[in-house]
Amino acid sequence: MNSQPSQKAFVPFVSVENMMRLVHHIGIETLLVELCAFVEEDFKRWESFDKVPRIASHSKEGVIELMPTSDGDIYGFKYVNGHPKNTKEGLQTVTGFGVLADVATGYPVLLTEMTLLTALRTAATSAMATRHLAPRGADTLAMIGNGAQSEFQALALKAICGVKTVRLYDIDAKATEKTMRNLQGQGLNMVACHSAQEAVQGAQIITTCTADKQYATILTDNMVGAGVHINAIGGDCPGKTELHKDILLRSDTFVEYPPQTRIEGEIQQMAADYPVTELWKVITGQAKGRTGERQITLFDSVGFAIEDFSALRYVYSRIKNTTYFENLDMLADPDDPRDLFGMLQRAK
Amino acid sequence: MNSQPSQKAFVPFVSVENMMRLVHHIGIETLLVELCAFVEEDFKRWESFDKVPRIASHSKEGVIELMPTSDGDIYGFKYVNGHPKNTKEGLQTVTGFGVLADVATGYPVLLTEMTLLTALRTAATSAMATRHLAPRGADTLAMIGNGAQSEFQALALKAICGVKTVRLYDIDAKATEKTMRNLQGQGLNMVACHSAQEAVQGAQIITTCTADKQYATILTDNMVGAGVHINAIGGDCPGKTELHKDILLRSDTFVEYPPQTRIEGEIQQMAADYPVTELWKVITGQAKGRTGERQITLFDSVGFAIEDFSALRYVYSRIKNTTYFENLDMLADPDDPRDLFGMLQRAK
Repeated sequence: MNSQPSQKAFVPFVSVENMMRLVHHIGIETLLVELCAFVEEDFKRWESFDKVPRIASHSKEGVIELMPTSDGDIYGFKYVNGHPKNTKEGLQTVTGFGVLADVATGYPVLLTEMTLLTALRTAATSAMATRHLAPRGADTLAMIGNGAQSEFQALALKAICGVKTVRLYDIDAKATEKTMRNLQGQGLNMVACHSAQEAVQGAQIITTCTADKQYATILTDNMVGAGVHINAIGGDCPGKTELHKDILLRSDTFVEYPPQTRIEGEIQQMAADYPVTELWKVITGQAKGRTGERQITLFDSVGFAIEDFSALRYVYSRIKNTTYFENLDMLADPDDPRDLFGMLQRAK
Repeated sequence: MNSQPSQKAFVPFVSVENMMRLVHHIGIETLLVELCAFVEEDFKRWESFDKVPRIASHSKEGVIELMPTSDGDIYGFKYVNGHPKNTKEGLQTVTGFGVLADVATGYPVLLTEMTLLTALRTAATSAMATRHLAPRGADTLAMIGNGAQSEFQALALKAICGVKTVRLYDIDAKATEKTMRNLQGQGLNMVACHSAQEAVQGAQIITTCTADKQYATILTDNMVGAGVHINAIGGDCPGKTELHKDILLRSDTFVEYPPQTRIEGEIQQMAADYPVTELWKVITGQAKGRTGERQITLFDSVGFAIEDFSALRYVYSRIKNTTYFENLDMLADPDDPRDLFGMLQRAK
């Protein structure tokens, strides 16, 4: 080649390997705390973002989604899939990547894996909601569904909310064993339970995170006592819910972005005008969060583009002056921008 | 690292350099002919695609768009920006990248630069429309706007429609000089013109491809004689048009996807029910294209996701068993898909 691409042509890329190196370099609990601060910062300026429900392409087996947002200066989007049956084929249920771009030029400035990053941001966001909604002094978590998200939830709730004990249940005991093995030595008391009912005993925080593209009832009404906070993570697309409707009726429901949650969240079981509170309003003090000891608070989490934006922004800020990225020759950059063809010809 | 990622974790990536190598390996005219065949194949099965207008994020200076589509087996999307003012800063007006994914698993199977590829697919699509709509024996092209797309247009119309002569005009004479220099030795007669009016003399095909985010009148009514075919390429976002309304009123207008073209194309100047014909219907014989010698046909092109899908599909088919890609470690792939955390821990 006669000419090397200029710096503008390169997009920093964080591979899975580099993301893992970055996590270990920062330390996972520190990272979750920092990431939670980035998410909270963006929830505080919620109104400054362009918001659309994610653009979903549904198929029989799953969904592929694009989740864009912009604050006017930075644009970000995530590509993410959700294929519950993937696990049986040795593949991830959820995998993804994301891009951050400069609104002024439209040029991408970051490409990163987002399978790990989504797991981290989902956990950080649950912990943020829990810190604002759980009863004071809550230190016991019932973690129902011990799949790929479970360890991240447990560590985020430990680092951000002070959880000390995790009561684990999964329909597959091997999943619980895996989670307990992975969390060994992380400073959490762990209790393996034989049912969801057993898991919720004494827990002030319940996180459900199961994956099944069908209406499921992971928690029934009788299991949920007064005063708890629930993070319902697994119900995140049409036809996929985890909680019995009666639990919703006893709870105050907090959501990310109502137009999306009404399609994808637990509240898809309810009428279109079912009352919900936007979480960002609780965080900014514009709406009430927990108002009483016996109140059940429900964070009906589906994952929203702004959380990915925060995560992308965090990674972008954290890879500067490190070796945790490589430059991808992803953008054509002719010396004269009108001379794309000339660039092509000179490469002969 | 204890474990290397498996093959599933890798996504083939076509860099700008590799795209240029691929173009030279195949030969640009052969590539345009093959690419046109892929686009036409997908236009013929238009009804089998998921179609949505692109998801645009507009700012003062430009637009960032996501253009997804799926045929039920393969999913594709393009990220593309449009920033007319970029040229002044030495950046491309339009740059982009694209992804192809497997609907069954949601896993991406191709990431590629799409700045060059968009230029190629835009030209191939114009040529496809021209072959179906231009008068028989048309061999002279007026190319108005001699920016980054102009050489691709000229070569596609040569290779696919038999154009022999290109009459060039740009408001900036240097742009015309650049295009003539680049097309030297490509077997085209070239005539530099001093006005749009001069350029259209004797041309049966007119392509307008200028970039200005404001209503412009590149062609006025008196310039357009009976019987010509026009490709209006440059008007492709709200507020950006190139043709005087009176030309539209004298023409039969052919479009890609009406809901998008009514927002972005030349017909944004017209009423919401202004009659248009979908190009795919002409190609499948369900609608009439050119019906008379004096008819003016207008391809009001804005660029649609299916054309990018075809281009991605083409590149995917053409890089197999070549060295024109590299594998990116973009997807987390733990041995046990539920054990994302374990994979992270083992990387310590």
